[in-house]
Amino acid sequence: MLDDVLEQVRSGALSVAEAKARLAAFEDLGFAKVDHQRSKRQGFPEIVYGEGKTADHIISIACALQARGSSVLVTRVNKEKAETVLRACPDYSYHETARVLYWKKEQMPADDSQGQGYVAVIAAGTSDLRVAEEAAVTAEVLGSTVHRIYDVGVAGIHRLLSHLEEIQQASVSVVVAGMEGALPSVVGGLVSHPVIAVPTSVGYGAHFQGLSALLTMLNSCASGISVVNIDNGFGGGYNAALIHQLVHRGGTRT
Amino acid sequence: MLDDVLEQVRSGALSVAEAKARLAAFEDLGFAKVDHQRSKRQGFPEIVYGEGKTADHIISIACALQARGSSVLVTRVNKEKAETVLRACPDYSYHETARVLYWKKEQMPADDSQGQGYVAVIAAGTSDLRVAEEAAVTAEVLGSTVHRIYDVGVAGIHRLLSHLEEIQQASVSVVVAGMEGALPSVVGGLVSHPVIAVPTSVGYGAHFQGLSALLTMLNSCASGISVVNIDNGFGGGYNAALIHQLVHRGGTRT
Amino acid sequence: MLDDVLEQVRSGALSVAEAKARLAAFEDLGFAKVDHQRSKRQGFPEIVYGEGKTADHIISIACALQARGSSVLVTRVNKEKAETVLRACPDYSYHETARVLYWKKEQMPADDSQGQGYVAVIAAGTSDLRVAEEAAVTAEVLGSTVHRIYDVGVAGIHRLLSHLEEIQQASVSVVVAGMEGALPSVVGGLVSHPVIAVPTSVGYGAHFQGLSALLTMLNSCASGISVVNIDNGFGGGYNAALIHQLVHRGGTRT
Amino acid sequence: MLDDVLEQVRSGALSVAEAKARLAAFEDLGFAKVDHQRSKRQGFPEIVYGEGKTADHIISIACALQARGSSVLVTRVNKEKAETVLRACPDYSYHETARVLYWKKEQMPADDSQGQGYVAVIAAGTSDLRVAEEAAVTAEVLGSTVHRIYDVGVAGIHRLLSHLEEIQQASVSVVVAGMEGALPSVVGGLVSHPVIAVPTSVGYGAHFQGLSALLTMLNSCASGISVVNIDNGFGGGYNAALIHQLVHRGGTRT
Amino acid sequence: MLDDVLEQVRSGALSVAEAKARLAAFEDLGFAKVDHQRSKRQGFPEIVYGEGKTADHIISIACALQARGSSVLVTRVNKEKAETVLRACPDYSYHETARVLYWKKEQMPADDSQGQGYVAVIAAGTSDLRVAEEAAVTAEVLGSTVHRIYDVGVAGIHRLLSHLEEIQQASVSVVVAGMEGALPSVVGGLVSHPVIAVPTSVGYGAHFQGLSALLTMLNSCASGISVVNIDNGFGGGYNAALIHQLVHRGGTRT
Amino acid sequence: MLDDVLEQVRSGALSVAEAKARLAAFEDLGFAKVDHQRSKRQGFPEIVYGEGKTADHIISIACALQARGSSVLVTRVNKEKAETVLRACPDYSYHETARVLYWKKEQMPADDSQGQGYVAVIAAGTSDLRVAEEAAVTAEVLGSTVHRIYDVGVAGIHRLLSHLEEIQQASVSVVVAGMEGALPSVVGGLVSHPVIAVPTSVGYGAHFQGLSALLTMLNSCASGISVVNIDNGFGGGYNAALIHQLVHRGGTRT
Amino acid sequence: MLDDVLEQVRSGALSVAEAKARLAAFEDLGFAKVDHQRSKRQGFPEIVYGEGKTADHIISIACALQARGSSVLVTRVNKEKAETVLRACPDYSYHETARVLYWKKEQMPADDSQGQGYVAVIAAGTSDLRVAEEAAVTAEVLGSTVHRIYDVGVAGIHRLLSHLEEIQQASVSVVVAGMEGALPSVVGGLVSHPVIAVPTSVGYGAHFQGLSALLTMLNSCASGISVVNIDNGFGGGYNAALIHQLVHRGGTRT
Amino acid sequence: MLDDVLEQVRSGALSVAEAKARLAAFEDLGFAKVDHQRSKRQGFPEIVYGEGKTADHIISIACALQARGSSVLVTRVNKEKAETVLRACPDYSYHETARVLYWKKEQMPADDSQGQGYVAVIAAGTSDLRVAEEAAVTAEVLGSTVHRIYDVGVAGIHRLLSHLEEIQQASVSVVVAGMEGALPSVVGGLVSHPVIAVPTSVGYGAHFQGLSALLTMLNSCASGISVVNIDNGFGGGYNAALIHQLVHRGGTRT
Repeated sequence: MLDDVLEQVRSGALSVAEAKARLAAFEDLGFAKVDHQRSKRQGFPEIVYGEGKTADHIISIACALQARGSSVLVTRVNKEKAETVLRACPDYSYHETARVLYWKKEQMPADDSQGQGYVAVIAAGTSDLRVAEEAAVTAEVLGSTVHRIYDVGVAGIHRLLSHLEEIQQASVSVVVAGMEGALPSVVGGLVSHPVIAVPTSVGYGAHFQGLSALLTMLNSCASGISVVNIDNGFGGGYNAALIHQLVHRGGTRT
Repeated sequence: MLDDVLEQVRSGALSVAEAKARLAAFEDLGFAKVDHQRSKRQGFPEIVYGEGKTADHIISIACALQARGSSVLVTRVNKEKAETVLRACPDYSYHETARVLYWKKEQMPADDSQGQGYVAVIAAGTSDLRVAEEAAVTAEVLGSTVHRIYDVGVAGIHRLLSHLEEIQQASVSVVVAGMEGALPSVVGGLVSHPVIAVPTSVGYGAHFQGLSALLTMLNSCASGISVVNIDNGFGGGYNAALIHQLVHRGGTRT
Repeated sequence: MLDDVLEQVRSGALSVAEAKARLAAFEDLGFAKVDHQRSKRQGFPEIVYGEGKTADHIISIACALQARGSSVLVTRVNKEKAETVLRACPDYSYHETARVLYWKKEQMPADDSQGQGYVAVIAAGTSDLRVAEEAAVTAEVLGSTVHRIYDVGVAGIHRLLSHLEEIQQASVSVVVAGMEGALPSVVGGLVSHPVIAVPTSVGYGAHFQGLSALLTMLNSCASGISVVNIDNGFGGGYNAALIHQLVHRGGTRT
Repeated sequence: MLDDVLEQVRSGALSVAEAKARLAAFEDLGFAKVDHQRSKRQGFPEIVYGEGKTADHIISIACALQARGSSVLVTRVNKEKAETVLRACPDYSYHETARVLYWKKEQMPADDSQGQGYVAVIAAGTSDLRVAEEAAVTAEVLGSTVHRIYDVGVAGIHRLLSHLEEIQQASVSVVVAGMEGALPSVVGGLVSHPVIAVPTSVGYGAHFQGLSALLTMLNSCASGISVVNIDNGFGGGYNAALIHQLVHRGGTRT
Repeated sequence: MLDDVLEQVRSGALSVAEAKARLAAFEDLGFAKVDHQRSKRQGFPEIVYGEGKTADHIISIACALQARGSSVLVTRVNKEKAETVLRACPDYSYHETARVLYWKKEQMPADDSQGQGYVAVIAAGTSDLRVAEEAAVTAEVLGSTVHRIYDVGVAGIHRLLSHLEEIQQASVSVVVAGMEGALPSVVGGLVSHPVIAVPTSVGYGAHFQGLSALLTMLNSCASGISVVNIDNGFGGGYNAALIHQLVHRGGTRT
Repeated sequence: MLDDVLEQVRSGALSVAEAKARLAAFEDLGFAKVDHQRSKRQGFPEIVYGEGKTADHIISIACALQARGSSVLVTRVNKEKAETVLRACPDYSYHETARVLYWKKEQMPADDSQGQGYVAVIAAGTSDLRVAEEAAVTAEVLGSTVHRIYDVGVAGIHRLLSHLEEIQQASVSVVVAGMEGALPSVVGGLVSHPVIAVPTSVGYGAHFQGLSALLTMLNSCASGISVVNIDNGFGGGYNAALIHQLVHRGGTRT
Repeated sequence: MLDDVLEQVRSGALSVAEAKARLAAFEDLGFAKVDHQRSKRQGFPEIVYGEGKTADHIISIACALQARGSSVLVTRVNKEKAETVLRACPDYSYHETARVLYWKKEQMPADDSQGQGYVAVIAAGTSDLRVAEEAAVTAEVLGSTVHRIYDVGVAGIHRLLSHLEEIQQASVSVVVAGMEGALPSVVGGLVSHPVIAVPTSVGYGAHFQGLSALLTMLNSCASGISVVNIDNGFGGGYNAALIHQLVHRGGTRT
Repeated sequence: MLDDVLEQVRSGALSVAEAKARLAAFEDLGFAKVDHQRSKRQGFPEIVYGEGKTADHIISIACALQARGSSVLVTRVNKEKAETVLRACPDYSYHETARVLYWKKEQMPADDSQGQGYVAVIAAGTSDLRVAEEAAVTAEVLGSTVHRIYDVGVAGIHRLLSHLEEIQQASVSVVVAGMEGALPSVVGGLVSHPVIAVPTSVGYGAHFQGLSALLTMLNSCASGISVVNIDNGFGGGYNAALIHQLVHRGGTRT
């Protein structure tokens, strides 16, 4: 892009002031500068981290973005805030377990009948569902088909094995686990696609709010596993969707 | 595969004993059971973790695998052990900085002129090179083209920006950093492809052998970043090659 | 000072009892001994740490200090306590985001048109604003002009670079960041003045209430950075004002 | 025992001095008081922790104990020290991988053909063998039959499953694992007997010398698992032998 | 079991679909897959972890299990939830201190007059009672006789010694302690049966929510001690019952 | 600078290729890109971190920099390496306690008779001298006058107080302490200039390689203290020189 | 004592049953066994830890102890519980800041005019008062005279020095400090009597609930300092009173 | 002392310069300022921390101190350094296990026949002896009689109890333990004198170089225990001697 801008400055197509503005490329909403260019750059919806923001902040950001046609994903929105936002922005949808609020121009993908493959979101226990759903809904809003495979923790390995083919045929897996966090290692040994491991803070005593599961996953002896932050379902889903779409739409995008 | 085996048992094509054997699918070298099926399953060379193994152990594993035609990658082999192994297995190659020993049936890829894209391996400082080279050579042995972009730490941001286009056009980046470990966050904000972050144990005082860099990367506010263990250059290169090849060879493999 | 006191004792200008009293130099309000000499010694307002003190405690300290003409800065005062104090001490002002209550004899500085330079307070994200404002208001009450440069986190490096000149022309920077805490490293590489880094407890999962950002800043590979405690906006502003005023008013003061 | 002693004092069968001596029940070798009564109390060999003791110390303890007919198990003895001890105490045996030196009156058990059951010692990787062998040899010296099942880490779950029946038919399992330490959870979900988990310090980066594996095992979601200290193969073998013999010799002993 | 299934497939007694189903062996209640086979496999009641589950979830799981005749133990149920469940499932019993809800087909054991031995549950302080009772009630519901020996902390060693015979004659001990967690070491030196140590989070200051007691127990210099997670009274009771019943009912079960 | 470059592109004074090159502004020595512009930007010598670099690497960097007239400071160079470098670069000087190698165009400052003020480097114990000297020599090479005040730990407060005037009249203090690290708090309460605190790894037992001293300094209740990494004497000296020179040479530089 | 009992058994003065009872020496209140002998053994009031006990529990223990004439000290009792207890046990007194409830047969000591010396309780800041008062009141209830010296933190060293003689003439000091916890080191360097250091959890950010102050005190370079747990004012006061009374009442007591 | 000095200044008996000098009160040996006044102030030998000092440094300090008649205790001196020092300072003695070098004007105390009481130094295991001897020899050099009671760890409680009377009749105990560190709690419950607890770094796996034992001791539920740093035998002996001598020589000294 630098080449382009410099070239246009040279040719006079762009003034110095315009060139500087082109590089800046954002506008000021007063309390937060929203980067519109980034949305275009990545072909993905605009992501807004909702925790710690008031409903009013979310509404003004959401409206500004929707107005210029970007899809939007707002994470970590509790039910009460979500209802306030939905009254102001009725086109948005809310997923309560995932605590995610979103607006998409096109429909969400329903299945992978078009041969586009899918993301497997695999969760160890029922108490990991909030994080798993955050991953799953994130990947869906970002355009991927998702297969959910839940309650398949390693202490009952037959439950996992009964889903073996469905897991192996995914393009990428997001594996969510709290407690001892061992599930990604087992899955990683069974598949040949990338595994994004998401430790959760579900655990007791010496679990230390997810530290135990996090260390387990970082130390996995299976190859092909990378890890995101504790309870970061969004990160798991985002990484998976990024990989999935590169694979199925092809090539590099900048 | 379970369906196939059960079906063949039903039809009499497979005896009960054969069916059990088929599921087991590995052989015993005495001290370590090498999983031949896995090599086929993943389309990748066989990986051997060299640290803590004697040269003799490495030689017997290496010969067994080469004999049946698998490509082989042995990590964490110091120069002295490598020389002993090379005398016994003269077809193998050794990369000293990366401490990696390997044997490939086909040639390593030289460039991406065939439009297959490439993996960018980006390193913050000169002391991160061992880990960065482990990542780079791993990705190459696994069949990817690699572009190395080194010495571009965040304290001199203009150095990173001067490589911006090369970084943005990669299919996937491996970003290696010790000290404060901030480089993946900056790279993650500049690209739209997946970033694999590798913290290194390079640092002083309150660095705690890489813990500081690891935490930085897990807490990155940029999307699209996932993390592997401290100094795990192999893991970074493996994940990158896995993603790169899915993208450029297409689709899902099991 | 010791010389002076001893000399006056020798000359008889001071009795032994007076000499002892002179060294003691504080009075007792019953629950806390306020050091008036220190206020004179440093040329700065009296600092009161408000957290854990009742509104009544704050009022009695505030009155005692104002009565003898010291400027006063009370930190960590929530809105409710502040309103009670303001009813009793109507000359005080309150800054809600910064949670700071203060009284100044002279006006606060408005701009740096007199060529006195300014302190740059730079913050990574909108959730770091409480801490950033505590730093900014502290520096202002202490007599410095402050430029606020907010929402310029490293994951969108172009936002920071668009403020480059304003940052480089400051006399000293306070850089406030949570999450991965990488902003001070990038700023430190771009300026030639001292950088005071303030980690915040804003983060999730493996952030450990600011420990991750703190370690990042301590391990920065940029020179010229020093660090204060997590969320210690006051400390950041105080250090910056101390440096700024030495620079612009000149010389050493004891 | 208190009743007995008091009763004998009352009846005059024991003098006060003898009674005191009876309660003390140990003798002084100068540098360490060896508790002979304990050996009898537990029906087990005398255990000597060899680390940090010189060969000469070990020889004098070993001779004293052998002289009065106790079986003896000396742990953490390196090869060099062992050879010195063996020259002085030729009846002792040494197991190099387990670093264990022992003397038994009776033969070690060879197999479980007498229907006495066995202890399964299960290890994840080849680098866990030292710890696993310490567990196995300890259990054998203590009188149990041991089945060794090695190199069955969770990243290749089929290898573990191929030993399923052998594992399920044990009386008790010792499961040894480093890296992510997930193996005990998987084994715990497959068996109905007690599992003693032994974390090892085998790992890299964020493994923290076994802390990661230890936390994994403490947080296991499988029931029936308890944990000993990092690399404490002796503790694993001792606990297993204790349980195994209670089961197969029956009842309570004091 | 694999042999059986394969053999029946071979013989035609089982179709391929039936064989697959047999291996799966669980049913889907919608939000959690309950493993009925496991209950049969282990001869123990079905265990449900109640924390984080709503009363309604517990009721539906509890009914499904009771309907097919499994005994059931639901842990970590507070009084309010328990009362709701008891109204829906009137056959269940609730133990308030232990926070345990259960249903048993047969009566709970009252004493060990049949010579079946007993589990000793030993607790250091009155504040450890919740955890100790969770262990005791768990062992009872699982079919063991329990002797409770409470308030015998190491700072008053005579209190422990006054129970010496009762402790030594148990088949297995569960030792529960917070604060410095030293009790298992002392007990372990006095008995010849296995000791399951349970650290509690009872403590202050540098206790770090049980970490101090946990480390103490892992580092015990007494042999025959293994450890479960902090506050995991259930784990202590479960392990003890498992060992106790193997000893007194004899042999191996799969 | 961006304005200038764009303006020259516009006017044709600079080609697009030249403009790109101007922004890059560094040259490649093969293994490390040395940033010449930075040296000019900061008015300070070029800093080279010597640890982990071979004598040959240091020699080639040192020569390249000296050749273009930059002063150079190489830190963490042990005596052996230093002697090799000095044979190749005879103009360099070496300070053994500080482990610093440097070359300055002008003389080092000898005293502050010109009224330029000075940096006080204050150290608690004799074992903190390596770090204190690294700070002192760094500040001197960077052009500041330094007063060394050593062996004034808080356990003998009279030793510190006997230097009170010398400390109070400095422009900035660097306070170096290991053990409990309390010295900066006491100094911070006695002066009105900025204090840079440097924790050292000197300590025993629960000192954890400097963590204890680091935490002490971050938690100081004195205002005006900021902290650098453990053992980072260079950082302490650099920050102090930066502040000192701003104060005494005046104003802002970019 | 063992000699005595055995001797009396021998002479028939004591039956076997009586001898066993004599060793046991405690009675059972149902929920907690109160050790009356210990009270006599130590010449101190009975200590009851109030936290986590209901008012009813405290009342029944308090009555039982008062009934047999022991002085009683109940720590960590909040105001609400205290008022309930005081209604039932009107002879008790309550100290609100110290959260201590007590009953003494004799009067509390008022001053040290009888030349019995005193305990100095020294506190750094006003927010450490709760802990300091717990120490002071504990020492008083245990029979010591206490001098309180508060608000003398190290950042204003003159405040401490103005109390120097009063501190130096104490028999033992309890030094209470949060934040950086440096006060005991300074006091330890000024006195020749034992110093009991009490870290408090008062602090922010990287204080980690008192860990920072605890480490500071453990690492003190002053001799003659020992440390109790974080916020353990009771422990500080108890140790001080124990030492104080040995010194001033003389000799050893068992 | 301040009064005296001021009074003499007033009366002309002391010049201002002399008064300043009097407050300073130490002399400069070049590399370390030795505080002679402190030796007199505390009535104890001068303490020199030997670790990290060369034999030459120790010799010059030792000579200077001996020359003016102070007793001297040099800790942490290995055998090699000690022999060098002994050749230069032949009046000194060396204790190899304790690693302590000392010179005393008077004889060391041999026994407590004069009714002066004694310090009990109690150690858990043979591997704690280095630390225990450092404590014992320190207390002896400082003038106390010491009784050594070794190898009485809590896992064999009868060994401790067999020394009960000797322990109870001491004036103060130093209790040294590694591993789980439980011994001070048990001792603390048996005696009515102060207990100084010394954790050692002796342990394995999750012992973390003494952290486990340290936490155990800080969390002890026995009253009357205070703690010094890990392996700080000197601190244990010093505190004990300080208390012992106050008790047996009486009163307060400043």
